[in-house]
Amino acid sequence: MKIFNSPQVLQQELLEAKKCGKRIGFVPTMGYLHAGHLSLMRIAKDKTDILVASIFVNPMQFGPSEDLESYPRDFKSDEVLCEKEGVDYIFYPNNDDMYPSGYSTYVDELVLSKVLCGAKRPGHFRGVVTVVTKLFNIVLPDVAVFGQKDAQQVRIIQQLVRDLNFPVEVVIGPIVREADGLAMSSRNSHLTKEDRNKALVIYQSLLLAKLLIEDGRDVSSVKSAILEKLGYVTGLSVDYVEIRNYDTLEEAESFESVILIAVAVKVGKVRLIDNIIVWN
Amino acid sequence: MKIFNSPQVLQQELLEAKKCGKRIGFVPTMGYLHAGHLSLMRIAKDKTDILVASIFVNPMQFGPSEDLESYPRDFKSDEVLCEKEGVDYIFYPNNDDMYPSGYSTYVDELVLSKVLCGAKRPGHFRGVVTVVTKLFNIVLPDVAVFGQKDAQQVRIIQQLVRDLNFPVEVVIGPIVREADGLAMSSRNSHLTKEDRNKALVIYQSLLLAKLLIEDGRDVSSVKSAILEKLGYVTGLSVDYVEIRNYDTLEEAESFESVILIAVAVKVGKVRLIDNIIVWN
Repeated sequence: MKIFNSPQVLQQELLEAKKCGKRIGFVPTMGYLHAGHLSLMRIAKDKTDILVASIFVNPMQFGPSEDLESYPRDFKSDEVLCEKEGVDYIFYPNNDDMYPSGYSTYVDELVLSKVLCGAKRPGHFRGVVTVVTKLFNIVLPDVAVFGQKDAQQVRIIQQLVRDLNFPVEVVIGPIVREADGLAMSSRNSHLTKEDRNKALVIYQSLLLAKLLIEDGRDVSSVKSAILEKLGYVTGLSVDYVEIRNYDTLEEAESFESVILIAVAVKVGKVRLIDNIIVWN
Repeated sequence: MKIFNSPQVLQQELLEAKKCGKRIGFVPTMGYLHAGHLSLMRIAKDKTDILVASIFVNPMQFGPSEDLESYPRDFKSDEVLCEKEGVDYIFYPNNDDMYPSGYSTYVDELVLSKVLCGAKRPGHFRGVVTVVTKLFNIVLPDVAVFGQKDAQQVRIIQQLVRDLNFPVEVVIGPIVREADGLAMSSRNSHLTKEDRNKALVIYQSLLLAKLLIEDGRDVSSVKSAILEKLGYVTGLSVDYVEIRNYDTLEEAESFESVILIAVAVKVGKVRLIDNIIVWN
């Protein structure tokens, strides 16, 4: 396993590998790796010859009042985990490698990124699609694997790839959960024991939604039921509960197409998201 | 020579070629090819194994009141000229191939594109960098050649490549001029005989500027001299005369760095641009 800080040096190495017909798999991360990330690495490794993981807490996707500074980091542990998963190259740039002085180019998705987390975090998805564009150009992946945990992000990256014609297959890895159902997230490490317990209601409310849909309830009553269940827990504030068409991210009027049910809540100071996709 | 309309089919073909180690040269154009374009093709051909030219009048880079509809087109002639220059693949998409229904992703350069033509043509360079990003991803060039005629465009594309980490070498081809000095442009075909004659003053004013710089004049007196010379010709309206640092596109205060002297004028209904770069 090799570790690269320089975009240019890694890109040269990977250009050479591609000339020899090697297929490149890529898992972009912000580090502080957990079982969710590792599951994505396994998916990428199965499909390709060379596995690249990036570890970069991208400042462009954090708002001024967000948790950039406190975002958890542990490169030594990440390195050990990557080695175990058979990662060939870790890309671990610093901010100046990615955004040198005079940087002035941005990529924007203007429809899907305006709702859900995009409405709450202006500029967030601009940061995401800009850094993913850069990472794709540096790593030149044949296959890139993203976690369904960030469902809107995945949908926007599918759009980025389609609209800008990246020669990249985007694969979505399922959400990996703790034994008690909490979706794995680097941010979980910031939860107090008590808040971690409260956070369990998030997935429970999504499971309830699934049952109610199977029971034939309509969109507004399912949404109310989720909000009600979340409302029982004190110290938890709802950012949004949304039931949307997965393809357009427009509000769903029925459960007839593929539906994304997405929840964002704050538990203490920690913002957590979770979702289920319902195929009908 | 093969002609492709489909981005996906061309991209597949070029991905295969790259796997065999072939180097790809690329000249993006809006068609109605003239000796300027052909000179760029020769530069690209000398440096690579496969020569790709695109012919696409990109609607995204035209403003609502600009000349998209009347922009000159002649694919049959372009095809003959490409064949003569040894082009291997022509990429000739239609608007729906490039911007399918639901298209929503844009690339923007936010500093260099705000001045000169960018100030006069809002949205123009967003269209340029977006389409060039798409073309780079479809054609996957090792070398892309752009004409110095569009000096600001070249500078912005250099920035795009640097900022977004495209593995592409950008080469600048010198301006090709008619025998009487008029810079070659597809739009020249719209000039009446009389207006074509008036347009000669553009390059003459740039040559005068060069003489005055050699003579030690300062920036403001050189600029005044250009404006004065252009002002002698009736029926010609100046859009801008600018003396800028080539790297930053900021207004130059002296002639000590690399300087771009750029002129945009309207002759009749036709907007023409020209420039010289002064190396000191």
